[in-house]
Amino acid sequence: MCHTVAVTERIDHTLRGRWTPTTAQLPPHALRWLRQRTGLAEVRTPARTPAVPASALSDTAHTALDAVVGPGFVRVDRDSRLGRAGGLSYVDILEQRGDGALAVPDAVVLPGSPEQVVEVLRTCAEHDVAVVPFGGGTSVVGGVAALRGDKAAVIALDLARLDRLVSVDPVSRIAVLQAGLPAPEAEKLLAPHGFTLGHVPQSYERATIGGFAATRSAGQASAGYGRFEDLVEGVRLAAPVGEWRLGAAPASAAGPDLKQLVIGSEGAFGVITEVSLRVRPRPVVERYEGFAVDGWARGSDVVRALAQRRVLADVTRLSDVDETEVSLSLAGGWKTAALKTYLRARGLARPCLLVLGWHGASEDEVRRKRRETVRGLRLVPLGRPLGEAWRHGRFNGPRQRDALMEVGVCVETLETATHWSRVSELRAVVREALRDALGDCVVMCHISHAYETGASLYFTVLTARSVADPIGQWQVAKAAASEAIAGLGTISHHHAVGRDHAPYLETEIGALGLDVLASVKRTLDPTGVLNPGKLLPSGLASRT
Amino acid sequence: MCHTVAVTERIDHTLRGRWTPTTAQLPPHALRWLRQRTGLAEVRTPARTPAVPASALSDTAHTALDAVVGPGFVRVDRDSRLGRAGGLSYVDILEQRGDGALAVPDAVVLPGSPEQVVEVLRTCAEHDVAVVPFGGGTSVVGGVAALRGDKAAVIALDLARLDRLVSVDPVSRIAVLQAGLPAPEAEKLLAPHGFTLGHVPQSYERATIGGFAATRSAGQASAGYGRFEDLVEGVRLAAPVGEWRLGAAPASAAGPDLKQLVIGSEGAFGVITEVSLRVRPRPVVERYEGFAVDGWARGSDVVRALAQRRVLADVTRLSDVDETEVSLSLAGGWKTAALKTYLRARGLARPCLLVLGWHGASEDEVRRKRRETVRGLRLVPLGRPLGEAWRHGRFNGPRQRDALMEVGVCVETLETATHWSRVSELRAVVREALRDALGDCVVMCHISHAYETGASLYFTVLTARSVADPIGQWQVAKAAASEAIAGLGTISHHHAVGRDHAPYLETEIGALGLDVLASVKRTLDPTGVLNPGKLLPSGLASRT
Repeated sequence: MCHTVAVTERIDHTLRGRWTPTTAQLPPHALRWLRQRTGLAEVRTPARTPAVPASALSDTAHTALDAVVGPGFVRVDRDSRLGRAGGLSYVDILEQRGDGALAVPDAVVLPGSPEQVVEVLRTCAEHDVAVVPFGGGTSVVGGVAALRGDKAAVIALDLARLDRLVSVDPVSRIAVLQAGLPAPEAEKLLAPHGFTLGHVPQSYERATIGGFAATRSAGQASAGYGRFEDLVEGVRLAAPVGEWRLGAAPASAAGPDLKQLVIGSEGAFGVITEVSLRVRPRPVVERYEGFAVDGWARGSDVVRALAQRRVLADVTRLSDVDETEVSLSLAGGWKTAALKTYLRARGLARPCLLVLGWHGASEDEVRRKRRETVRGLRLVPLGRPLGEAWRHGRFNGPRQRDALMEVGVCVETLETATHWSRVSELRAVVREALRDALGDCVVMCHISHAYETGASLYFTVLTARSVADPIGQWQVAKAAASEAIAGLGTISHHHAVGRDHAPYLETEIGALGLDVLASVKRTLDPTGVLNPGKLLPSGLASRT
Repeated sequence: MCHTVAVTERIDHTLRGRWTPTTAQLPPHALRWLRQRTGLAEVRTPARTPAVPASALSDTAHTALDAVVGPGFVRVDRDSRLGRAGGLSYVDILEQRGDGALAVPDAVVLPGSPEQVVEVLRTCAEHDVAVVPFGGGTSVVGGVAALRGDKAAVIALDLARLDRLVSVDPVSRIAVLQAGLPAPEAEKLLAPHGFTLGHVPQSYERATIGGFAATRSAGQASAGYGRFEDLVEGVRLAAPVGEWRLGAAPASAAGPDLKQLVIGSEGAFGVITEVSLRVRPRPVVERYEGFAVDGWARGSDVVRALAQRRVLADVTRLSDVDETEVSLSLAGGWKTAALKTYLRARGLARPCLLVLGWHGASEDEVRRKRRETVRGLRLVPLGRPLGEAWRHGRFNGPRQRDALMEVGVCVETLETATHWSRVSELRAVVREALRDALGDCVVMCHISHAYETGASLYFTVLTARSVADPIGQWQVAKAAASEAIAGLGTISHHHAVGRDHAPYLETEIGALGLDVLASVKRTLDPTGVLNPGKLLPSGLASRT
């Protein structure tokens, strides 16, 4: 349930919008099950209209920005501004639904070229205007919150017009893509060349190339295609001090890998305008299958074995007992009942669902890859329909979330990663922290990204929403989970730091790490206009 | 011929020494061939004793350092200092053989723990002493040249005493190794646990774990095991401002990957004291085979296909026509003659040697891997003896080089990498630059590291050494090659930047890249004691 995507239709097709009231509904049996598990009351909690303050952008700044991007590309109307107010975290959506104070940008600026992005940043530095780079707006960590820091105003720098496939090098299998391209558009442009990025996070339907790079994205098929940072051959960054291009070779010993400093910089060092990416031939065959294993310990051992034997399926996803139970309960119907019976008959007391998916150039290749993955594991096969069901619903999390929010549910996800020897301990302490903080709740967990040395853990939480203080309710739980994570794993495996994880970064990278990031930021963004309050804790950029 | 290693025996076993006069000799037929190809005269050019100036380390600094590392671990004797004077480039060895001015450190300091390294750095910062971190001393780019910059004195910080295997996590397959461990010692310590790093550069016999990390090393089997930076799960860095530890998880989106800023920092940001490394089960079976392909274009297409199909052998190494001819000519004997006849009979007018090697847990696994690699390629098999001959001689380059230096040969290597669409152009321009600069010479080239998007190019040059100005002769050629590389590929694929490539770094990473590196250096090493003149062009650390 990595949050994403246009829930509904009211989208400005040129420029993309933000969260809008949902029309999605939960099936009755799912709602019944949820009430039983969390004590949820029979309420409806419809959205209210959020307040939008007047724009604080000065006329001189507006005029100067108009001169850079051209008339019509500096927008101060309510819908444009509201459409770039925050991302898609639970708290963001509460705010967008009228709970709590929503930070709204003073203007939306739409540059038409990488050169214009540099000029916009210079202009903003000159006029004391903060800049929040905005791609698909799918951040779930406050990464695109319209914070102005100590600046007089804040704009959302929407990259929607940077939507070109710049070049394809079919010999080297590298494509240069502009940052504002949403992932599906990028795939459409690559398809005639026979290539794919194979990057499919849950935010796929809406997230952009630049956003993937800025946040070190990982996709559902990253076991096969690599994390987004593994795909990046080069970057073009616009900073207030000028343009920076990196990426001379597939590998290099010419000093530190500065690309890896730009990837994950979350708009705090500059705005990524173009990315050179490794592409692969589009798969001809995709095959997804469900399997069951008995219990979390056995399940995670299986995934570890696959990673360490280097035969992971391109998609490898293990649900814990709770997530498996919830998936089956929400699915409902006679097929699910039959499946439960079958699992009991096979002696699986605590079934964990394992979805495996393989991509290939032919049925033969996919069969061969499948054989290598499953060899010797004695998995209980559940068949292709279950795998296909997962594939079919892979982007549904956000829509389900919106439906849940209509009926008084607190629903959110969080994630981490650690080394194998601590995976189960980390899962246990995060579950405990969430349960202690929230009381009656459902905590589900899955591994969706496995490595030779460790794995990610992705948690989904459902509980009855506090009427008095829905935002505070979640913030307490999130803080408890984050404190449980800090020191045992990374504060984020693929959601990034944004505003929400910034307080925990020091535990992970040390005070020296923060100092280094701050020194890089001062070099590239001396007046600190870029994405204030994200990545680095507020005020740090001026420290040392 | 990636330079390395103890040529001879006169080594201080505790502390390791440096280049010493060679006893190796070229076989007569090889010398005859060389004279014919390069117009080499019949001379002997024996080494002379280099001048060693008096130590400039002040008594107060000496006393302060003694207090940190304990008596006996600050050495100012001639042999200790001479033993850490420079690395193993051709120019380094000329200087060590008495040609040109050799920069000799004023003292050798041997800290006994990571904590002591921090204290040594603080003490040096306090006493205006530059610090050159010293591992195996195998740099071929001036990375360990004893430059003092603007400091009063310079020490070699020899990490030889940091030689522990700190811990092994067999579940996560991670080992923590201290930086001063030479690679063979590291392997000996890992072997009882059943693990290997699989990192085998030509410098293997002498290079250290810390050096691998500091220079972004790549090994002969990196296609199978990954480049060294791919193995690094965490680092511990000692800087004048304190200790910095990184590495919470196998993958993370918690901001930029700062590990990748430490890896490749070449002692300019701090001294790497410990590295957490991914380890693999030791292979039970290793199989090497020789193959031939007709011509460079076809050969590089084959390697590209292997990389893009993701079926590279663990060792994949393609020699160009010249390197193939030289290898066969130097080998000599009736077997070689028979091989040449066989190649002609198979219709290979311009044979290129392709060595492939596979590692595995069983004969079955190796056979399976081999089958996937060679499928559909129609390679001309030359058999296992040829592969084994390569394996047997894989560390011999430096020894051959030393023998060549005794008989008046100028012999050096250089390397780069680029994307596939530019590989052949880059090879051509570098060959041309070297030939223009050197006149009669042999230029050989191979690909030893291939990626989906590109490959490395490794050049070896042989020519008659200038008597009047042997150092100037090579510097002109190196500059010409470096200028040919800059803009087309990386200035180094695995040798690093050091002193020799520093002038070309700006073309690769831009002025902003240099500014960013300088800002990081100022944060971690505010007084600039660490490895002056390496990585960053001199004086840059104080810029902006």
